[in-house]
Amino acid sequence: MNPDGAGGPVYSGPFAGPEGGMDPGAAGGPAGSAPNPAVAPEVLLARAYLSRVAEPPAPALARFVAGLGPVEAAARVARGAVPDAVARETSARRTVDRARADLDAAAACGVRLLTPEHEQWPHWPFAAFAVAGKDELAPPLALWVRGPGALADLCEQSIAVVGARAATDYGMHMAGELARGAGDHGFTVVSGAAIGIDGAAHRGALAVEGPTVAALACGPDRAYPMAHEVLLERIAERGLVVSEYPPGSVPGRHRFLVRNRLIAGMAGGTVVVEAGLRSGAQRTASDARALGRPLMAVPGAVTNGLSAGCHRLIREGAQLVTRIEEVLESAGRIGFHLAEDPVAGPARPTDGLSAAAAAVHDALPARAARETGWISREAAVPIGAVRAAMVDLERRGLVEHRDGRWRRRPVPADEGCGGA
Amino acid sequence: MNPDGAGGPVYSGPFAGPEGGMDPGAAGGPAGSAPNPAVAPEVLLARAYLSRVAEPPAPALARFVAGLGPVEAAARVARGAVPDAVARETSARRTVDRARADLDAAAACGVRLLTPEHEQWPHWPFAAFAVAGKDELAPPLALWVRGPGALADLCEQSIAVVGARAATDYGMHMAGELARGAGDHGFTVVSGAAIGIDGAAHRGALAVEGPTVAALACGPDRAYPMAHEVLLERIAERGLVVSEYPPGSVPGRHRFLVRNRLIAGMAGGTVVVEAGLRSGAQRTASDARALGRPLMAVPGAVTNGLSAGCHRLIREGAQLVTRIEEVLESAGRIGFHLAEDPVAGPARPTDGLSAAAAAVHDALPARAARETGWISREAAVPIGAVRAAMVDLERRGLVEHRDGRWRRRPVPADEGCGGA
Repeated sequence: MNPDGAGGPVYSGPFAGPEGGMDPGAAGGPAGSAPNPAVAPEVLLARAYLSRVAEPPAPALARFVAGLGPVEAAARVARGAVPDAVARETSARRTVDRARADLDAAAACGVRLLTPEHEQWPHWPFAAFAVAGKDELAPPLALWVRGPGALADLCEQSIAVVGARAATDYGMHMAGELARGAGDHGFTVVSGAAIGIDGAAHRGALAVEGPTVAALACGPDRAYPMAHEVLLERIAERGLVVSEYPPGSVPGRHRFLVRNRLIAGMAGGTVVVEAGLRSGAQRTASDARALGRPLMAVPGAVTNGLSAGCHRLIREGAQLVTRIEEVLESAGRIGFHLAEDPVAGPARPTDGLSAAAAAVHDALPARAARETGWISREAAVPIGAVRAAMVDLERRGLVEHRDGRWRRRPVPADEGCGGA
Repeated sequence: MNPDGAGGPVYSGPFAGPEGGMDPGAAGGPAGSAPNPAVAPEVLLARAYLSRVAEPPAPALARFVAGLGPVEAAARVARGAVPDAVARETSARRTVDRARADLDAAAACGVRLLTPEHEQWPHWPFAAFAVAGKDELAPPLALWVRGPGALADLCEQSIAVVGARAATDYGMHMAGELARGAGDHGFTVVSGAAIGIDGAAHRGALAVEGPTVAALACGPDRAYPMAHEVLLERIAERGLVVSEYPPGSVPGRHRFLVRNRLIAGMAGGTVVVEAGLRSGAQRTASDARALGRPLMAVPGAVTNGLSAGCHRLIREGAQLVTRIEEVLESAGRIGFHLAEDPVAGPARPTDGLSAAAAAVHDALPARAARETGWISREAAVPIGAVRAAMVDLERRGLVEHRDGRWRRRPVPADEGCGGA
């Protein structure tokens, strides 16, 4: 490590030999979680170095690593033997090699480094980063993760539920409801562990023992926000806490926005529950859109300022969702989850009447009895059609016949058909 | 008149000669409103007869009248010399001729008969009925109107604002706001005078002295609902009350739904404010859609059952609207009313920073001062770019330089960028 940044390359990972190599068991999997013997120690060291040498997103470095492989790429970055674009992303930190220390610190606090070489790297979801082809949507070079969850499995059926920190009770309620519903359907709830909507989403998933993933803007060992220290522990016990930033990294304003692309990228769809017109959730939403993922938003009262961001998203094309079934219909496996139409109230005895029968029934006064000729004129329905309609209406119990006249029988009162 | 319906045709309008003819001034325009000397008395009598001979919508009769003209068509209907489809719509009432009595009764209560032959018939808006080509969207044969308003002029810039009778305070508030806004922009508010949303819409328009049109499911002389007797009087004084039904006609369940096509047809666009999943407003909405008119809906809390109908409409393609500007953008003259983006809060001093400057600013701790090399490594920005960024940040008052170190200057706190 070369804290003052002066002098030549000090990255020594690939060259350290067996005695300096990491114990792959320690780095690849702490006690109780899946080890990854398939990922070589030099790859882990190289990825650990790369995860610190540039501030994400680092599109040039990502392309460089994809082309040369992590070990060769890390060695060249450390030597400064890189194209200008990569140099711009890496020159400031290339002489800082804390790979070994970071892996040691990680292992000590139950964090492991998940790399693209690991079978649980979510290659399929992250392929969208390459497809999007935008610099700000560069894929992560590695992820520091904490918890028993297997990331690729968790991403397979997953929903991001995000929103404002200064959420209203309504927003908290909706976030919790959607997250519980997602958990009940076996979907992973992905969010950012922030106070407000994010926290309600994680808690909702945990409440039904559903899987949940928190993507942080700081090291996965840090409790940020502090108020969510216990929540983060629970997520790490039952789901997964993930971060691009090595253990000990502090959160920064910029990192919250950059982190949001991971939330959008890990999830099969993103639901914004409440959001101001300018907010981090808007960034997650635009990332989801850029990644080609379904974007959804929960409506709210127009008088609720925190629904304004959701309403704008819907006006711009996001799907309006009110229930988990609608979310899964948009973001679940295609054709697998189809929301049934919400309960539309009990069927009415007048449902499905022919136009003539409806007109005839309508023409009958509430209490008085009438003969067929009167009804025909009042309803403007020919006599023959009135008689046919009466058969149907009588069968339905809507009218009764007595002394040559027809009388309406009471129908349960209902709202709505008379309104504009 | 032949109340028992037996015997031959008694329709005598076109054949009654001068002594039996209506005074066109009385029928065509009561004191104070525009007379229509261009509409011949026999046409008025024929249309009055036709407006009662069939229960709307009467698609076959409408086509028959369009083909033969009202006078000849009325004579044939009265004689029963019509195609089967027309007979089915007219046979029950064809011998009932109350045309003259209806026109007299109308004139006595300030109602006039507006016909397609009148210059204020809204031909252009109603052309959509022919284009839709659906039986339930047959055009009206005539309209009985009350009030000083000129219908074609009123329709030119108009918005239907409709919704549930059992509206919430929220719905009433939104309906009133949108209607006031429409009035302020010179748009006519069209609705159905029902209690709830309809009433709030009319009242909102009246409150800003904006034009408003109420389409009734009963005669235009009747106060229905009774609770809106005063409101209907105010509309008739300042706007227009319109109905397909002759004076004295009673409202019927069927008629409320049929009437809704007139609301949709007269308006340049329809806004549903609150509506159950099954409601008359849904019918107005589907009519607006079938007529090719912009359909809009106001969102609300998912926990508000009366917003459920609006949310379903939006999911089915209706435009979500929260402000009158958005309504006018969708339904106003094309290109004429463009909603500006809602106020997005004050600009921030960090708006528009380059990525490097944002990263540099972000890297600076809240209180401690740092030298350039430290900032470069922390932000992963090359030294030269850090120096360039500092020029910009200093100019914006975001950082200050003292004793060789940079220090962050306080920025107004804000919510949102840190959230998920």
